[in-house]
Order: sequence, then structure tokens, then C-alpha cells
Amino acid sequence: MSDNPSFVLKAIEEVAYEQRPIPEISDDEVLVEVKKTGICGSDVHYLVHGRIGDFVVVDPMVLGHESAGVISKVGSNVKHVKPGDRVAMEPGATCKKCEACKSGRYELCPDIIFAATPPYDGTLARYYRLPADLAYPLPDGVSLEDGAMMEPLSVAVHSVSTLGGFRTSQSIIVFGCGPVGLLCMAVARALGAKRVIGVDIVQARLDFAKNYAATDVYLPVKMVEGESRPEYSRRNAEEMKKQLDIQDRGQNGIDLVLDASGAEVSIQTGFFVAKTGGTFVQVGMGNPDVTINLSMLMTKELVYKGSFRYGPGSYPLAIALVAQGKVDLKPLVTHRFAFDDAIAAFKATRAGRSEDGKGVIKAIISGPGVSTDEA
Amino acid sequence: MSDNPSFVLKAIEEVAYEQRPIPEISDDEVLVEVKKTGICGSDVHYLVHGRIGDFVVVDPMVLGHESAGVISKVGSNVKHVKPGDRVAMEPGATCKKCEACKSGRYELCPDIIFAATPPYDGTLARYYRLPADLAYPLPDGVSLEDGAMMEPLSVAVHSVSTLGGFRTSQSIIVFGCGPVGLLCMAVARALGAKRVIGVDIVQARLDFAKNYAATDVYLPVKMVEGESRPEYSRRNAEEMKKQLDIQDRGQNGIDLVLDASGAEVSIQTGFFVAKTGGTFVQVGMGNPDVTINLSMLMTKELVYKGSFRYGPGSYPLAIALVAQGKVDLKPLVTHRFAFDDAIAAFKATRAGRSEDGKGVIKAIISGPGVSTDEA
Amino acid sequence: MSDNPSFVLKAIEEVAYEQRPIPEISDDEVLVEVKKTGICGSDVHYLVHGRIGDFVVVDPMVLGHESAGVISKVGSNVKHVKPGDRVAMEPGATCKKCEACKSGRYELCPDIIFAATPPYDGTLARYYRLPADLAYPLPDGVSLEDGAMMEPLSVAVHSVSTLGGFRTSQSIIVFGCGPVGLLCMAVARALGAKRVIGVDIVQARLDFAKNYAATDVYLPVKMVEGESRPEYSRRNAEEMKKQLDIQDRGQNGIDLVLDASGAEVSIQTGFFVAKTGGTFVQVGMGNPDVTINLSMLMTKELVYKGSFRYGPGSYPLAIALVAQGKVDLKPLVTHRFAFDDAIAAFKATRAGRSEDGKGVIKAIISGPGVSTDEA
Amino acid sequence: MSDNPSFVLKAIEEVAYEQRPIPEISDDEVLVEVKKTGICGSDVHYLVHGRIGDFVVVDPMVLGHESAGVISKVGSNVKHVKPGDRVAMEPGATCKKCEACKSGRYELCPDIIFAATPPYDGTLARYYRLPADLAYPLPDGVSLEDGAMMEPLSVAVHSVSTLGGFRTSQSIIVFGCGPVGLLCMAVARALGAKRVIGVDIVQARLDFAKNYAATDVYLPVKMVEGESRPEYSRRNAEEMKKQLDIQDRGQNGIDLVLDASGAEVSIQTGFFVAKTGGTFVQVGMGNPDVTINLSMLMTKELVYKGSFRYGPGSYPLAIALVAQGKVDLKPLVTHRFAFDDAIAAFKATRAGRSEDGKGVIKAIISGPGVSTDEA
Repeated sequence: MSDNPSFVLKAIEEVAYEQRPIPEISDDEVLVEVKKTGICGSDVHYLVHGRIGDFVVVDPMVLGHESAGVISKVGSNVKHVKPGDRVAMEPGATCKKCEACKSGRYELCPDIIFAATPPYDGTLARYYRLPADLAYPLPDGVSLEDGAMMEPLSVAVHSVSTLGGFRTSQSIIVFGCGPVGLLCMAVARALGAKRVIGVDIVQARLDFAKNYAATDVYLPVKMVEGESRPEYSRRNAEEMKKQLDIQDRGQNGIDLVLDASGAEVSIQTGFFVAKTGGTFVQVGMGNPDVTINLSMLMTKELVYKGSFRYGPGSYPLAIALVAQGKVDLKPLVTHRFAFDDAIAAFKATRAGRSEDGKGVIKAIISGPGVSTDEA
Repeated sequence: MSDNPSFVLKAIEEVAYEQRPIPEISDDEVLVEVKKTGICGSDVHYLVHGRIGDFVVVDPMVLGHESAGVISKVGSNVKHVKPGDRVAMEPGATCKKCEACKSGRYELCPDIIFAATPPYDGTLARYYRLPADLAYPLPDGVSLEDGAMMEPLSVAVHSVSTLGGFRTSQSIIVFGCGPVGLLCMAVARALGAKRVIGVDIVQARLDFAKNYAATDVYLPVKMVEGESRPEYSRRNAEEMKKQLDIQDRGQNGIDLVLDASGAEVSIQTGFFVAKTGGTFVQVGMGNPDVTINLSMLMTKELVYKGSFRYGPGSYPLAIALVAQGKVDLKPLVTHRFAFDDAIAAFKATRAGRSEDGKGVIKAIISGPGVSTDEA
Repeated sequence: MSDNPSFVLKAIEEVAYEQRPIPEISDDEVLVEVKKTGICGSDVHYLVHGRIGDFVVVDPMVLGHESAGVISKVGSNVKHVKPGDRVAMEPGATCKKCEACKSGRYELCPDIIFAATPPYDGTLARYYRLPADLAYPLPDGVSLEDGAMMEPLSVAVHSVSTLGGFRTSQSIIVFGCGPVGLLCMAVARALGAKRVIGVDIVQARLDFAKNYAATDVYLPVKMVEGESRPEYSRRNAEEMKKQLDIQDRGQNGIDLVLDASGAEVSIQTGFFVAKTGGTFVQVGMGNPDVTINLSMLMTKELVYKGSFRYGPGSYPLAIALVAQGKVDLKPLVTHRFAFDDAIAAFKATRAGRSEDGKGVIKAIISGPGVSTDEA
Repeated sequence: MSDNPSFVLKAIEEVAYEQRPIPEISDDEVLVEVKKTGICGSDVHYLVHGRIGDFVVVDPMVLGHESAGVISKVGSNVKHVKPGDRVAMEPGATCKKCEACKSGRYELCPDIIFAATPPYDGTLARYYRLPADLAYPLPDGVSLEDGAMMEPLSVAVHSVSTLGGFRTSQSIIVFGCGPVGLLCMAVARALGAKRVIGVDIVQARLDFAKNYAATDVYLPVKMVEGESRPEYSRRNAEEMKKQLDIQDRGQNGIDLVLDASGAEVSIQTGFFVAKTGGTFVQVGMGNPDVTINLSMLMTKELVYKGSFRYGPGSYPLAIALVAQGKVDLKPLVTHRFAFDDAIAAFKATRAGRSEDGKGVIKAIISGPGVSTDEA
């Protein structure tokens, strides 16, 4: 196709379809015809607030970064893919020259060009230009929708496997049963978890988690009047430990706590339920300032790690887990929209449910001219 | 000697000298005649508050846990020391059977018997019974006072080397220039640090740090009215980065931040000055609930670790560093007291200075009948 | 029961049943009534050669170390088991005081008391005395035969998981399809292996491996006249790589090579097929002097690790994998003998098959008076 | 200057000076005017044998890869250096896109373009083109000769620090006191080694090592008639352990053994003297097939690692160690030659001594027109 329709965030609460030039590619790049794009909380956040932390949308920006597509053109040095190949698209192009890139932690590259993080355009367009090594061929049996879901799955792989060091027969608690939380549970399950405990304040989300990947779920007790958050969190943790027979250590302890909620009480509760010597990975972003319990951190020698996007090996492992049938992404895709209905997709994601009342876990927008029926 | 005079905490603000029975030892234990004991902040805390967190003094308890002495008697299985040997005394006897003990992290043993942590008696007595493997012979040239100081030095070794993973040519910032903070700087220096930055709100302590082990020191800016702690901490960090030419990454970044102050603004400032991908070790205990910046933790993928006492290898490395002349403990011993003057030693430590106005870093109490002149 | 019949190696090729005193236990020990014991290659080796390396049988020694039983008596400090409990018995009592024990590598304790390693008696008796922490309760659904098999399974857990660092979606090649090799494959499978390649020179063993845990098997090509071992190994490796589509790196490379054969050509072939940056774990003992390819070690930066017995966490993970159904031990128990038929059990293991021609993988000897029908 | 004289290996034992075109640089590259180049054993090996393993010189190839120089021109994207800057030149340009490059182990990149490894030209020319991130500015006080020496020093940093994991207060034995062996000792010393033991069969080299960086040296005993190499190695090791009071474990054990000789008996001896649980790094290449002792590898659970060149962080640490005065490179530069005398430099290196009888450790060839007096 010779045009490049794009879905552009022009200002807070203002989006529009625009034609953008088709990108030129260099010898080491590929041009991808984008077929499927998932909507992420960050996309919605930019739409509503125009910024995330220090990242501020100044100029109009194409949205979207969870995508898969079909190779349209390849640069002269590219050998591992050819036009027509189906690929998952890792959306962060790094400098490859800084200390972080060279030492195997490219997620920390200060010069990363990340799709739909200002000032860089995203993938909700017909065409997207990508360094060739970020285009991962999809094995047979892995759909383009699966391919788009590799992005949040890579977040989970990075958090649970790389940072969390989670291993077969360990136990995990995941706070927050949204898409990333569910995918973290799925990864833990795929890695051979003994226990996967999902926590959420919405029973319907717990029900989904239980059917999907959790071995146990927990609905927090209610806060009572006059109770401080730390007091509440301690009480909540005690109840949780009792209900689920969690001990502070050994075989009945929780090796890895993962917060995908960003909520202060979740984080505080997590410190209390983590096992002595355990690890806590923070993947959900919420209020930037959060009160934690220093005594727990110290007397249990907890390791509290921040997680940011994903690094080397995340996409390959994500794809392998899906290809081997260890992670099933299909149940998470609850909504599908045509490219021309992108606004409706954002509306549903923002509301948490579509107009027919069905809860949204992940909404996928097809590329321009692509049917929502093709997975 | 046939008696066992002991310095006992009977209740809050109430201490007394008492005769206690001389302990019987088992085949795998030694009896040590205690010669030198340093006073720790925790000893003072028990005296003043009667508790630290969940550890509450119920029955009278002998104080003291930073000690060295001379072997008086050995059990039948003991081969590596004999009566008359000078030894540093590691004051935590662990069960050796739990998961923590077996996996190389005995500091997390739930059944640890730690000197002067209720309900267990401490070392401020003529005799102390010790598992033989916790009695470390002091090499020639290492004094008994040095031997007593091995306890806080081991805390520093555990925090900087084991948990902090600090290596030659890295840079460290230490918040808090009390005994533990100074020892952490000394360890970093001994491990070959490129930069050792000490931070404290007392200029005299910075001056001492600069003479002792710091390559640079920093006096925090003043908080201004109406400023929240997080706002202040961010501003303080910016100033610190400017003054000391600290960058967020690479060769000019801070590989390891260590808080030995327990102060919330130190911890917050530390999150802002740590380098991307850096490590933060918490060794100072203060207010149990502390507000941290989640965005920094996540976008920099910081690793925030709690440190508790010391583990396998801490005492041996501490002794080796002193024996090789890489750490000099002598400048830290500012005050010496006879056993009968233990109350004065506590008073000075508590006040931060002795009656003559001299600031206390570490006060050492000699054993019963031992002269303060013998080091 | 008031006697303690024992199966004793008196000299090379000379065994006898003897009555031994029932062991006294200390406060931290348990007395186990041994119910099932597997025969290991090392038991046979002592019978035939009277020594393994520097370990020489001088005095008569009870054989056997792969055992499970029922608690008969517990010391006064023992809380986690009680008489009547079914337990797997870890057969190496370590000193708990040396650097190796304290640092989490007790398998390297110089003072280990290991069953049926001279001069220490083994478990082929009615009663065996064990430090309580080495008695692991068997979960429901895990049989006493399974319990005896935890010993070789722990060897595999230690080699594949702890030393090999094997993780979900990686690939492994195991040279040698005897009991340990098969268990290593089973562990790799349980940890989520993408590929498990078994290699053996006996087709029937490959067939078994393929049914049991391997995804692929390989029968080495024949050596040709005049070919040196290194030449042969290189050729064999090339053929193997071609047949099985193995590359030197990336997704089609072999992350972990494990030799459970001890054969020089297996080790040499393994160096050639390992992926760049891969790990090679040596668990099979053969000729002490083996020629390896230094160029491969260096240019691929291979990591070649020796494996010895098992360490902290091996037994717990072994038991967990069986309890969770991730490893099935039952197919490996091919032969069962009554205590009085121990000689026949050794004969069959030594011959590799019983008189009826059935190949032996693992022969289990029941305790005195225990029926071979009870698993 | 407008020409590019180059020192070219045309065939075995045949070198010549030729004019080569001045390289064009891309936006991310720099052009360096080469000032100092050390001669490496591999340069000599190509001269004499025309190959190293699978790397065969087919077309004429410029020799040299241990170099430093002055930036002559920079590409448009280059910011960290400018013309006139003095830089050390890391001679391996990697693809930055493969699994090895992305995961922090670029030394294993299959597409590395390494200077003077066929078919790629080396640095013995007036100009050399380099990816900008491989040009490291030299701090004040670090000479261009030091800069050239950063290459072998990086080999030592990679072997001792990165792969060997060597830490303060550990002990090391280095077999082979040539340039790389000496630099490994120097790095160990800089990292705070307790003991650094150098081994060589030439007393003069031991004397040099003792003055330079070793705390102890060892001259191997003589082999006796009829003794096999493994027998000899065991006897040699026993003698070495006795002479130097080396134990198998603990504080008197050898944490890291490093072979920089490539000699079979050195490697074998190293296995015997390594401590239980120790690490052995192989950095010297000799006969490709070497016989090792499998029993030692297994019963001590040794970790035997191949080392190849250097990786991310090696050059920066090498430069830092020199800049901080922890490593002194000057004593190793024993010979200096003008560019026009390159043949004499190779002759001396090959012979191990110059015509005046002075032993060669490292010979440095200045760039075209550069005086040998400027360091």
C-alpha cells in the first residue's frame, strides 16, 4: 500500500487519524506492516494526562507499542527475515553503544527510542520502521494477536524470570490481576510454580485469575475506620497468611512477591507476606511516593527490585513459552476493534468494560484494512 | 577466676552488677574470658526503651555483644583454639539445621541466639560461652580492641561486600557518619573504591570521615519551609550531584548507595543519586515506615536490599582486612572505660560525647579486672 | 525389633549378613527403620574393587546409601518428625562448622560422614542413625521406593539445576542413559526443557530414554580404524549437530551439556556440541585422566563444572518435583529384592541384567522383613 | 598526513611495508592515528605459522592489535572524543545485534571484526578506523604506551575479575610469567589479593614476577625419568603445597588458579593445588588437546572456565586501575622500536630477547614517524 494512515494523539483527550509518510529504512532495518496492536495502560494515560512522569507529549504522537505485523521490506544487511514473514515487534530501539547496552541491560539505555513514548511515534499506523533485530519471527501456531501480546508478556518474563529469578517449585504472590499481573502469573506457572497466588480487590478479576493461572486467590480484608495504611497492611497480611497457610520461611514461604498494582497497601502487604530472604519485584506504577516498612526490609533481608520494560532474552523467552504451549495468551484478548474504531477501543479500555458491559482485559486494534476476524 | 561479675539491664533505665554462674560448656563450645566490649546503639536502645521492635526485654539481661577475649576453656571436640588464645567473638549462635543456615545465610536463622538480644544474655561479664566455630583467633598485630571492633566491621563487610557486591574501582555514597557508616566507608576503601562519599548533617563528623576513609563529603542543604520531604530530597540530591559531579550512569555514577542513618530524607536522597541499575543497601534502622520514590526504583531498576547483622565469611574477611592493614580500626575507639565504669560508658555513648566534651565514636569497656590501657 | 541385621562388605568380592548393635541416637538425631534401598554403581564398585579413588575399604563396612524408611525413634530436640513417619534419608552428615558447610556448599565438607563410603557404614541394615535434619518426610502419594530414589534424583537436581543453572526453555544433552543420566533428563524435563537429547551407545537404553524423558536421542557413529579419540569426537559431534539441527549458539544451541557416562569420547564430543558460552557439568566418573579440547573451552568460553553428590536444597527440590508429578520415578525401578537376596541384587546390577535377561536400571532391596510388594 | 604506510604479513615468514588507502569512516566511527602498538604472541604466531587454529591468513594482512593513538577524525554522531584526543583502541568490532552482544558477552559475537585476525587488517599502520565506542580517552598521567598495553591488561581484567570473580583478600596462583601472566598477577594485586603466587620454569621470569606483582613464586620440580605427566603433576603439586603452605580449603586455600602458559603440566598441577570449590581460568593457549584430572574436577567441584579476549567493562576497568595507580604497566615495556624497525621488533619478541641479550617482556612499535622516546 502506498499510504500510511496513523492514529495520532494531538493533545490531551484529542486524537485524530492522519496520513504520515511511509518511513524509509536503513540497511539494518525492516519495514513492518502492522497487523495487530494491543492497548496498554500507558497509551490511555497519555491520552488522558498527556504525560507519564517526566515524559510529556509536546508534539502530536502516534499511539501504540504492543504490535505484531508482516515484514514489508528489509534492509540490505537483513538476513533472518524476509517480506511476508510474520513478526512480533519489540518497540524499543537502543543505542547499542552505552554501558547499559553493552553490559546486557539495554532496558536502561538512556537513548532508547521507544514507540509511543514522547517524542517518538508509536505503532498504530499501517507501517512501522524497526531495527531488524527487534523483529522476531512468529513460529507456526502463534498468531499475530499472540505476537502483539508478546510485548506485555515480555514485561512479565523480565519481572518474574530475569529480575525475580523465579524457578521451578517456588511460590509467588501477584498483587493486581490486570493484564500484566495475569501474565506474571502465567509466566510463573510456565516456569513450574508450586503456588501462584493472585490478589485483587475485584472478585471477578480473582475468578478470572483462578481460571487462568492462579492456584489460589485472595480478596483483601476491608480497611476499618481510623486504621492507618501500615496498620491495615499488617492486619491484611496476617489474615492472608492465615487463610493461605503462608509461613515466613522454608517450603511454605513466598519466594517472590510481585506488585502489578502500584497500590501502596499492596506493596506494604507484600513486605509482610514475603519470606525471609525473599525477593519483591515492583512492576506496577502508581503513586510515585510510597511508604514501605523498613524493619521488614532489613530483618528479612528482602531484595526490592524495580522492573522497567524488558531486556535481552525477554522476547525470545516469551515467544518460546507461547510456542511450547506453556502460556496461553488467547483468553486475555477480550475485545477486538478495527483500525477505524480505535477510539472505541480506547474508550472501552479506559472504562474497564465495553458498552455491552463485558470487562476488558486486553483490547486489540487491527491494522488499517485488517479484519478483526483474523487472529 | 571463679566468679562471673556481669553488667545486667534489669528494667528501663535500670542497670546493676550481678554475679552470674560461670557457664558450662559442651564438647563443641569454648568459654571465653571477655576482655574488651564495644557499646552499640542497640545496647543503649534497650537501656532507654527496653525494646527494639518485637524484641522486648522481659527478664534481666546481660548487655553487650561486640567483644573479644581470651580462651579460658575448650570443649573436647575443639581443635582450632586452645586456652590462652586471643579471639574475636561472633555473638550469634545459629541452629545450623534450618534452610537459612544450610543455604549459606545463617543471619536469617529464626532460632539464632544473639548476645544481648532478649531473651539472651550478652557479653558484658567475665565469662561468655560460645560455639567454638564463632571464636576467631586474632592474628599477631591485631589487638583485643580491634577484636571487639570486628563485630561492627562485620556488619560493614556484610553490607558493602556481600550484599552490596562492591568491587574495585566502583563508587559508593554512605549516608550517616556514625560507627557503622564509617566502617562501611573503610570497607569500600579497602575493596579499592574509586570514590567514597560520606554524608552527614554534622560537619565535625564529615571532617572525621574525610580524614578517615572518605574521598569526598557532603553536607546536605537545609530544608526550607513548606517543602515536603520528597521535594526536599530531590532538591538535595540535585545539589549533591552538581557539587560532586555525579551522573546517573557510567563511570561517574554511584554504583552503591548505603544508608547507615535510618533517616527518611537520606534514603530518599539516596534513591535520586543512585546510578541507573545501581544497588542500595539499607543498614541503618530508624522509623520503621519510610516513604520512598517508586518511580526511581522502577525507571532506574534499582535493587534495594535490607541488611541484617552478618553472615558466613563476614568475620573472616573483617579480620583479614585489618590484619592486612587495609582497615584501621584504632581511630574509631575514642573512649575507654573500666568494667566498673560501664554506666559512664553508656552515658557517654548516649550523649554522643563524654563529660570533657569529646565526641564518642566508639566506647570500649574492658572486662572485669582488665586495664583500659591494654589494647 | 531388637536386632539389627546388616549387609556387610568384608573384603573384595566378599559379603556377609551380620548382626550389628542398634545405634544409640543423640538429642538431634533420629533412628530410622530402613525399608527400601537402591543399589548404586559405587556400592558395586566397592564390592568389586574395594576402593574408589582414595577411599579404601579397610574394615568391614555395611553397604547401601540410597534409602528411605520409617522413623523408629527421635531425639529430644527433634520436632519435625515422629515415630511412624515415612522419610527419605539423605546419607551425608556434615560438620556444619567448616567454611563449606557455613557458606551453603556442604557437599564439600571435608569431614562428611557419608553412608557406605569408607570408613563409614551404610544403610543396608534394619536400623540407621541419622541427623534429624536429613530425614525428609515423604508427602502422601510418594512411596518409600520413591523415597529411596530421592538420593540419585538429588544428584540430578544438583547437577542440572544448582550447578547447571538449567531453566525453562533451555536445551540439554545428556551423555549416558544409565540411572543418573535418565534422572538428569527427567529433571531437565521437569524444569521446562525445550529439548532433552539423550546419547548412549546402546540402542535399548536410547529407546528407554526416549519413552521416559528425552525429546531426542542420538546413537554415536562408529569409530574408524586409525582415528584418534579427538578426531573421532569431532566427527561424531559434527554428525550429531547435523542430525539434530544443533547450532553453535542462540535458540538452536545446547545450553547445558551433562556427562553421566565418564567416557572420554562423550566428554570430548560434548565440548564440540556445547553452545558458545554454554555450561558443561561432569557427573559421571570414569577414567581419572581425560583429554579435553582446550581450544573449544577457550574460544567458546565454556564453563566446565565438576559435580559431587548434592547440596542444600537438593533433597527438598527432588521431593517437590516428585510430589508435584513433574518427575516419575517408578519406571526406573526395574528390579526388587528381599533383604535376604541382596547378593542377587548386586549380581544383577553388576551384570546389567537379571537372570531372566531383563535389563537393570535400578534394583531396590527391601529392609529386613519388608515385602518387595510394598512400594 | 595523506598516506597510510602499513606493516603487512604477506605469507609465512614474509612481511613488507605497503601503502594502504586511508580508511573512510562512517557517522559512528573515528579515524585514529596509531602511535604505539605492542607485539603479541599471536602476531608472531601468524608470522611463523600463517594460522591460529581455524583462523588462516589467506590474503595479505596488516599485523598488530595492541594499540593506542590520537583521534584524527570523528564521524558526525561521535560526541565523547574529538580530534587530538589520546585514546586506547579496543580492537574488536562486534555486531551489536546477536544474542551474545545483547546479553553482555560481546567477546562471543560470531561476527566480530578483530584487528589482525584473518581476514581483517590490524593496527600496524598510520591510520586505523574504529567504532567510536571502542576509542577510550586516556586520563592525564596515562601514556600512549600505557594505552597500547590496555589490550593485554584487558585480557587479564577479563580473566581475573570478570570470569575469575576475584575479590579482595583472596589468593591466586598464576602459571606462566609472560606478559599476560604478569598482568593477571598485577590485576589480582590491584583487586586486593592476599597472596599472588607466580609459577614459571625460568628463574629470571620468577625474579621479575616477584619484583613486579607476586607475593610468592614457585619453580617447579624436575620431571623424573619414567614419570607420566599426571604423576609428575601430582608430585609437583604436593611439593608446591608443602613449600608454600597451601591447603585444600579455607583461608589457606587458593581461590583462583589461572593458567597463562598453555602447558599441560601447568594445567594438571593447577587442578591439584586449587582449593575445594575453587575456580580455574584458562587464558593461555597451547596444545589444543590437554589431559586433565576428572576426579579433582568432580570431588572438589572445581569450575574450569575458558577465557577469550575481553568483554564489556574490561577496557574501562583496565584504564581505571592504571589511572588510579593500582597497576603499573611501565616495567613491562622492555623494548621500543621505530615503525621502520618492526621486523627487528618481531625478531626480538620471537627470540625472547634482543641482540644485546636483554629479555623481552613487551616490545612496542611506534607509529610511522613517531619517536620511540615519546611514551
